[in-house]
Amino acid sequence: MYLHLQSTIDDAQRAGVDAAALQLGVRLVAPESGAQLLEGAQLLEIVSAGVPVPERGQVVSAFTVLPGVIEVLDRPGEQPLWSATRRPSTVVEVAGAVFGGGRASIIAGPCAVEDGGELLEIARAVQSRGATLLRGGAFKPRSSPYSFQGLGQRGLQHLKDVRESTGLGIVTEVLDPREIESVLEVADMVQVGARNMANSSLLKELGTVDRPVLLKRGFGATVDEFLNAAEYLLCAGNTRVVLCERGVRSFDQVTRNLLDVGAIAHLRGATHLPIIADPSHAAGRSDLVRAIGRAGMAAGADGLMVEVHLDPSAALSDGQQAIGPDELEALVADAGVLCELDGRTLLTGDHQTQHPSLPKIPTHLRGTA
Amino acid sequence: MYLHLQSTIDDAQRAGVDAAALQLGVRLVAPESGAQLLEGAQLLEIVSAGVPVPERGQVVSAFTVLPGVIEVLDRPGEQPLWSATRRPSTVVEVAGAVFGGGRASIIAGPCAVEDGGELLEIARAVQSRGATLLRGGAFKPRSSPYSFQGLGQRGLQHLKDVRESTGLGIVTEVLDPREIESVLEVADMVQVGARNMANSSLLKELGTVDRPVLLKRGFGATVDEFLNAAEYLLCAGNTRVVLCERGVRSFDQVTRNLLDVGAIAHLRGATHLPIIADPSHAAGRSDLVRAIGRAGMAAGADGLMVEVHLDPSAALSDGQQAIGPDELEALVADAGVLCELDGRTLLTGDHQTQHPSLPKIPTHLRGTA
Amino acid sequence: MYLHLQSTIDDAQRAGVDAAALQLGVRLVAPESGAQLLEGAQLLEIVSAGVPVPERGQVVSAFTVLPGVIEVLDRPGEQPLWSATRRPSTVVEVAGAVFGGGRASIIAGPCAVEDGGELLEIARAVQSRGATLLRGGAFKPRSSPYSFQGLGQRGLQHLKDVRESTGLGIVTEVLDPREIESVLEVADMVQVGARNMANSSLLKELGTVDRPVLLKRGFGATVDEFLNAAEYLLCAGNTRVVLCERGVRSFDQVTRNLLDVGAIAHLRGATHLPIIADPSHAAGRSDLVRAIGRAGMAAGADGLMVEVHLDPSAALSDGQQAIGPDELEALVADAGVLCELDGRTLLTGDHQTQHPSLPKIPTHLRGTA
Amino acid sequence: MYLHLQSTIDDAQRAGVDAAALQLGVRLVAPESGAQLLEGAQLLEIVSAGVPVPERGQVVSAFTVLPGVIEVLDRPGEQPLWSATRRPSTVVEVAGAVFGGGRASIIAGPCAVEDGGELLEIARAVQSRGATLLRGGAFKPRSSPYSFQGLGQRGLQHLKDVRESTGLGIVTEVLDPREIESVLEVADMVQVGARNMANSSLLKELGTVDRPVLLKRGFGATVDEFLNAAEYLLCAGNTRVVLCERGVRSFDQVTRNLLDVGAIAHLRGATHLPIIADPSHAAGRSDLVRAIGRAGMAAGADGLMVEVHLDPSAALSDGQQAIGPDELEALVADAGVLCELDGRTLLTGDHQTQHPSLPKIPTHLRGTA
Repeated sequence: MYLHLQSTIDDAQRAGVDAAALQLGVRLVAPESGAQLLEGAQLLEIVSAGVPVPERGQVVSAFTVLPGVIEVLDRPGEQPLWSATRRPSTVVEVAGAVFGGGRASIIAGPCAVEDGGELLEIARAVQSRGATLLRGGAFKPRSSPYSFQGLGQRGLQHLKDVRESTGLGIVTEVLDPREIESVLEVADMVQVGARNMANSSLLKELGTVDRPVLLKRGFGATVDEFLNAAEYLLCAGNTRVVLCERGVRSFDQVTRNLLDVGAIAHLRGATHLPIIADPSHAAGRSDLVRAIGRAGMAAGADGLMVEVHLDPSAALSDGQQAIGPDELEALVADAGVLCELDGRTLLTGDHQTQHPSLPKIPTHLRGTA
Repeated sequence: MYLHLQSTIDDAQRAGVDAAALQLGVRLVAPESGAQLLEGAQLLEIVSAGVPVPERGQVVSAFTVLPGVIEVLDRPGEQPLWSATRRPSTVVEVAGAVFGGGRASIIAGPCAVEDGGELLEIARAVQSRGATLLRGGAFKPRSSPYSFQGLGQRGLQHLKDVRESTGLGIVTEVLDPREIESVLEVADMVQVGARNMANSSLLKELGTVDRPVLLKRGFGATVDEFLNAAEYLLCAGNTRVVLCERGVRSFDQVTRNLLDVGAIAHLRGATHLPIIADPSHAAGRSDLVRAIGRAGMAAGADGLMVEVHLDPSAALSDGQQAIGPDELEALVADAGVLCELDGRTLLTGDHQTQHPSLPKIPTHLRGTA
Repeated sequence: MYLHLQSTIDDAQRAGVDAAALQLGVRLVAPESGAQLLEGAQLLEIVSAGVPVPERGQVVSAFTVLPGVIEVLDRPGEQPLWSATRRPSTVVEVAGAVFGGGRASIIAGPCAVEDGGELLEIARAVQSRGATLLRGGAFKPRSSPYSFQGLGQRGLQHLKDVRESTGLGIVTEVLDPREIESVLEVADMVQVGARNMANSSLLKELGTVDRPVLLKRGFGATVDEFLNAAEYLLCAGNTRVVLCERGVRSFDQVTRNLLDVGAIAHLRGATHLPIIADPSHAAGRSDLVRAIGRAGMAAGADGLMVEVHLDPSAALSDGQQAIGPDELEALVADAGVLCELDGRTLLTGDHQTQHPSLPKIPTHLRGTA
Repeated sequence: MYLHLQSTIDDAQRAGVDAAALQLGVRLVAPESGAQLLEGAQLLEIVSAGVPVPERGQVVSAFTVLPGVIEVLDRPGEQPLWSATRRPSTVVEVAGAVFGGGRASIIAGPCAVEDGGELLEIARAVQSRGATLLRGGAFKPRSSPYSFQGLGQRGLQHLKDVRESTGLGIVTEVLDPREIESVLEVADMVQVGARNMANSSLLKELGTVDRPVLLKRGFGATVDEFLNAAEYLLCAGNTRVVLCERGVRSFDQVTRNLLDVGAIAHLRGATHLPIIADPSHAAGRSDLVRAIGRAGMAAGADGLMVEVHLDPSAALSDGQQAIGPDELEALVADAGVLCELDGRTLLTGDHQTQHPSLPKIPTHLRGTA
């Protein structure tokens, strides 16, 4: 058996683990096949300290109650952490938003942060239409080096200011492990973009931070690779992971990408992690965003991430796929109806009043970091 | 200018056209670039008979009221017949079902007709759950020659019997131009399967029959090729065409195909033809059919085609993607809500009572054959 | 055990089979699970006629020497006929061309037959550059009904005339089962196009004709589906099948399709059937045809099918992918070198002189029809 | 007009540029639309300093001879640096290997560095078969966090030792900007893997290092995105870039990926950068590596990167696609023949003796960093 620890475990927590091992009569040693494991993974083999190792149930009870412990494994790698066989669902709470466990929320905002005043205006517009989180890129991954790469630190400052003015939580992308620290000063939720889904260096770092992660599927990635990318986060100890399906490459060109509604439906059963849909990048055209967003919700998504701009035609980056605030309002209304269709609740800003009877989220289902 | 005639135009109709030409002072001649046109296309060039050819408006008025005339074109091939620039929508009525013009309907039944008694049982089950058309293949296109190829004529007879017993309209596939005649004895709507979407011989024949056609998109076909396949039917004179999106090939294997919800949303705007979704072939797994079917409706589909089996695990063909009658009922209920979301009406069997206020379908929007 | 007969077996041949059964002490009966087999498949179950059925080796010896018998199967569908486990290779001879068994040949000509005089000129041009078969479509499958559909019967007549003038064998496509008879009057090899690869009605018919078939892979078809399409021909008794890889759909648009060189390499090991490459449809651009054709040969193709036009820019159909005669000459020279690289021989028109030492093709490897 | 400087320009070089501007009577100013340019891009607008700006020819002559200057642009972003309209070809020399300008070379070695002694053995084996560069990953990007992630620093040390023993140049991958420094202590050529092709942070850093870069195409990336990734390197000043096609995702599963030979052929004409093929990752199966490698060379690749293992079945990572040394030898021989086919030369270790007449590489075609 193996003991899987959070990579962020501190000395006091580790002392607690060692004390439990002593009491159980086992020793915790570095696994033999070390080189084959994730570098930095806190995995210890549970071996005899003279007397026989107790049976699995006893070992599990002794360790999994302790802070800093993720789980007891029969062998490294078995039963991935994302698997729905491990828990019914994970609920990720970010500022006023909740994803999973029967709750859905809307993230909206511009593709890139371009200007502070305008950002505030967009933020107020999406907030009043039901979005509970504001998206906006300060660091933008672009295909061409000559495309707008984002305002960087200046963009982060704009996001910070808008959060203070509106109270909206901020979702923003990080591209480089060296930028994580400054992004964390602003972001309530850190986004890993489609182009970086397989950037294991970045994922390993984000697995150790105390902030929820929005992980977008690569446009050429299989569902299996998508879940493996989530596993990089989970096994490093960050369980507040929200998946985001944003369309995959296909041979047809009427839409930019093809929203994989089958993957959304499959993931609802396969994993306990919440999954949302990004209709903006799937469509690549503003006129189809509402219909594709509805399709994503109908397939079972726990929310949407939508690009909104006050004047889509003037946006520097991806303007052709942004919708205006009124279209967002219509889509939010649709999403609410679709949530009700299978007993879920869409949380808009005023949900405390709207849904007084919404049950409490059980503590054991809350993601932790 | 060119005069586009139905390929089924008869002598009396043609005489009427010639009389109108005489009165207008024009001559109708075979176009010069004949070899480049569809063989059998009834396209005549409108040329001067001495006096100048009248202006377009006059020509259009003179001809388009006549039976056997499709339209007046400025040049061959311009403005395809499927284009939404030509008319707001086409309403296709089949037995009790209606597709388009704000109406949606459900087609359900087994993949293949396997047994007469069982077919009747399934028919009654789907009818009582809201389906208004029964699907079932007598001729089955199969990848392997050793897979069940359908019961052929015997299967058609079973379908005929069930129609008589239940009153359900029949949708069944035709694979071969030589089988059209016998299929027409049974089918209220003829299906062209995904593997035959580009079978132009078959399409040309079906363009001349007096029966609606359900045209499925090939799993490797672009949206443009899909519309071109519809054009084969339309330009031969059959305008009762319902498109069906059933998923395209992708690199991921968690579903059999990937339902192209973006294509559904796009087609709603691009063409006047109704479009439905087939979640069964997209999913390839019964557990995802309901979610994918909902996604198709949410994207704007005018109905669904669903594989239903009383005992899915025992079906000879594609059993793993068939759902049971109760799951169909749940999906039909979902579809009804989704129709209401944008002001459409799902017609189930008892809709005359349910929807007394449903407006009449304007005659000029009805597809003709 | 099951006895697999050619679907073209005649009464005399059938009498011989029955006599052998009598002598062996077995009875031949219709298989119980009849409905699940290919309609028209000549499969009989070998059952006891009182005494025990002899062992497999004896049964095989008794039957497989007889005309009209394909093989003895342990169960329907096992070991597909295309499998390389059945025989080392199939050699398909067509007029002066040979495909398989270490021989390769070049098919060249226009996409569509447009004009008799021009066709003759092209034929002479490709013949003098090393092509041994002339391709040219009389019936053209086109995405749009308004594209040139081929000259039909008139095109066939042109092909016939050119064959008489040049001695080149003719490869031409058939689209419709009803056209097979007239195509057979002209074609030395019948082509099934990519759009019809899964047209099982057409394949079943062509399985019974006495003419080699060039079967093109559908652009959205898996390798498995491609081989299953070949199986339709083989199990109906036509074993003179040449596969043709012509590129598959992909998300990138710099070429029309993506030549699947991995599939060519795989098929060389997986099946005994010869496989050629069509670089013209893969490229969709004349400037890349030579390089892609070389890649196909390097991957192991037993020949090439190339579109050639005297004046590519003037061609009515697919002109942008046709190369001129001199480019063909260069590609044929490349192909010759690539064949030598692994001990194969490219047969150009004057090969009898060139390769006096070429070994005879063993009779048991020749495809039959 | 705009002056495009290397991002690595030093103070002395910049002084030279300013002097030239003074002499020409122009001023160099930060472009107005600054936010839209690549952060860190050294682009200055050339504006009047009172007298009219001289015409383009004069400006180009004055600046492009200076160290630190890349080029003069009419507007930011026009004519990408990768374009073949800019120069006939770029020749990249790495240790004994040369790519481009009619030269091709072979990179071979294990997927991952697993053990020092074994690495030396493989290095000697591939060197004696004609490879001039050794590949081997110390940092491995893996889909699963539980797969072997490479030996890290220890792996780099093994590579360093083997370089000293054998003289082979080293190609190894970098995953994280923070690892570049330590990788540069070992690598003669730095590899950007397919999963990181769109990692713009990494590309921007590598654009400033004095080392050639092997840039692999992402398996879901278009050719356009591939070239844009190269542009990140080029515009930051590193022009020693070798592209590597390694297969793209497709719907068929007989090979792991589909080697895009059309892209290789296209890139030969579209860009001056050399392009090599990686048949190992395309095939995903050792039995097809030779055939697919040949196809890549036949399409025009300037070399190959091949996974080789002494005992493929025992490799910890990607063993199923590694070939043995003798298969490498056969593939190198094939590659030599294919190079000769179009007048190129494959450089194996002993090429100085073999090709005494090989012309010198013109200085202006050598990539610089």
